Amino acid sequence: MIYLDNAATTRVFDSAVIAAEKAMRDEFYNPNTTYKSGVKVRDSIENSRKYIAEKIGAYSDELVFTSCATESNNWVFNCGIKNKKGNIVISAGEHSSVYESAMQLKSRGCDIRIAPLDKNGGIDETRIYDLVDENTALLSVIHVSNETGVINPIKRIAENIRKLSPKTLIHSDGVQGFIKTGDSLHNLGIDYYSASAHKIGAPKGIGLLYIKRGLGIAPYICGGGQERGLRSGTQNTPYIAAFAAAVEQFDKLADGNRMHNLRNEICDYFVSNGCKIIGDTNNSGYIICVCIPNAKAEIVQNLAHDSGVIVGKGAACSGSKRGNRVLSAIGLSDKEIECCVRISLFADTARDDAMNAVKIILDSANKIRSNHVG
Amino acid sequence: MIYLDNAATTRVFDSAVIAAEKAMRDEFYNPNTTYKSGVKVRDSIENSRKYIAEKIGAYSDELVFTSCATESNNWVFNCGIKNKKGNIVISAGEHSSVYESAMQLKSRGCDIRIAPLDKNGGIDETRIYDLVDENTALLSVIHVSNETGVINPIKRIAENIRKLSPKTLIHSDGVQGFIKTGDSLHNLGIDYYSASAHKIGAPKGIGLLYIKRGLGIAPYICGGGQERGLRSGTQNTPYIAAFAAAVEQFDKLADGNRMHNLRNEICDYFVSNGCKIIGDTNNSGYIICVCIPNAKAEIVQNLAHDSGVIVGKGAACSGSKRGNRVLSAIGLSDKEIECCVRISLFADTARDDAMNAVKIILDSANKIRSNHVG
Repeated sequence: MIYLDNAATTRVFDSAVIAAEKAMRDEFYNPNTTYKSGVKVRDSIENSRKYIAEKIGAYSDELVFTSCATESNNWVFNCGIKNKKGNIVISAGEHSSVYESAMQLKSRGCDIRIAPLDKNGGIDETRIYDLVDENTALLSVIHVSNETGVINPIKRIAENIRKLSPKTLIHSDGVQGFIKTGDSLHNLGIDYYSASAHKIGAPKGIGLLYIKRGLGIAPYICGGGQERGLRSGTQNTPYIAAFAAAVEQFDKLADGNRMHNLRNEICDYFVSNGCKIIGDTNNSGYIICVCIPNAKAEIVQNLAHDSGVIVGKGAACSGSKRGNRVLSAIGLSDKEIECCVRISLFADTARDDAMNAVKIILDSANKIRSNHVG
Repeated sequence: MIYLDNAATTRVFDSAVIAAEKAMRDEFYNPNTTYKSGVKVRDSIENSRKYIAEKIGAYSDELVFTSCATESNNWVFNCGIKNKKGNIVISAGEHSSVYESAMQLKSRGCDIRIAPLDKNGGIDETRIYDLVDENTALLSVIHVSNETGVINPIKRIAENIRKLSPKTLIHSDGVQGFIKTGDSLHNLGIDYYSASAHKIGAPKGIGLLYIKRGLGIAPYICGGGQERGLRSGTQNTPYIAAFAAAVEQFDKLADGNRMHNLRNEICDYFVSNGCKIIGDTNNSGYIICVCIPNAKAEIVQNLAHDSGVIVGKGAACSGSKRGNRVLSAIGLSDKEIECCVRISLFADTARDDAMNAVKIILDSANKIRSNHVG
């Protein structure tokens, strides 16, 4: 199987799983106890936090572990907003966990403003600056699109918003950008940043929220006061260890130039076969959204799977629903959206495996077109 | 090491870890995708849910996986209440995740009523019936006390509340009761029930909320619509597998009579050595709260640890704070509370190990009393 759907089959995954397994067996004591074995587990969690913080340009006291980025995003929208009567600006390219959190607030009367996307899939910057005013309590812009891989210029947006409306808090859903873009969080100049460990190769079930030092936030999940009172619930020690191991291994393997070259080669091949790439400019290098004309993505996906290649059909988080909110916002027709396949590359996806997979995908599409199937 | 602090060192833990390891490696595909490998993972999650549901007397569509019982409890208090203007009744013996959730609502103006505990540590039933009225939106009573192991008569309370105020929703935090009391959830007759897998031997980081069929609840964590729209975020497949494995193994090992006999033997030994047992009537058999006069629990804990025995000092979730809200509510003085050690027995804790541990605990206390230490 060649797995190109947003997870790791690779050395990062192996390292993360080994770390989780070791912690499951060796560090099962409760980290919130006062006896030595528990304190040792607490130290291990703090070492993981410190390691991750250093790698992403943050202080360790700015990171709180959560169960996933979806939780982190819900947290920001529900507790991270100071001006409760203000408006909120998001982009049309947000992940459903940001979009639905905003819609929940809208149903309670909050003024939610949505900045459109450009044809490439990036946020339309000018329109954000039109929408944000001094009453904007929160601006939330996705760092890297989970549908197209397009990077939004978070640093520049943050700088401009600070001038326009200094009290506006700035959040970025960084699930697809975390580590991959190489950005330091302090350098981005934002207030909140969400990340999920499974997008860099750890198991699913651990994420974090970056909260800028000095910025208070009420807990969304309260109780025993774990995570310095910010996120209660006994910590998932094994997955925290896996998170740090994944960051370490990803950091060792990551080679931005190689990813961009590989992505370009794949995209060129698709284009030379009559396909259209969505979001080709300012891409992170890790995601390819390709529209394969007259071949329904669901059938392509199933045929390719039978030939040993796993690809996505839009983001998995929207995969079970009809349509695709983000691709629609980019201006694709329903017919085009039905034919969009999402390919995720990983830090150590081998070039030959990837090119082989692309050929299998195109062969699958050709079979559909020549009515052998579908 | 003899580990008597609310987790497993045992066969259940082994089975759960093996299940998690297997799922981490074999079932890492995203369960929310439409291709076969993803569908297989989804089927595996549904099989786990079905298995757990059958073992606890619930329908599988009544169980939603969460990251922990703390999340489940927060969910009920924030989204599970229909009559937003009504009052809420809890007991003074609730876990901090219920208590703090209630206090959060209180700070927003909600009328929170707290039913006291009796001298044994159980809820004072008569007082609940006094506090609940037709405007009570929610009653939340812990199933088994995490401090003392005392079982509250949830079924009888639920029956009486249905007569008194049919519209009141009834929640029970079942973390320490789940599986252990042998109760069927349908038989308890409640609306919501929270559980955490690590209290029966799975890794920390997975829980569930039981929501009675037909009862709508808004999601607390929204986004991609996982868990039938009730709890978004990519599912923690490995821990769900571990949860089901822990339930299976626990169910095989559990022997209520043996637990009660073992607990009685330990308690008798403590009493014959001048100690006082808190919560000795209606105990689940899995928890011993013992007050060892003139020996501070923290020092006992550390000395015992050095001799290879791990015990708790109050619940870990309140261990880092001064005092103990629940033991105070039972009527213990601050001086007594300082001397309370919590011992957790497990389904396969061996009698000889346990008695040996008890002797080490008492030896540690004697050393402190004779001023060798402390």
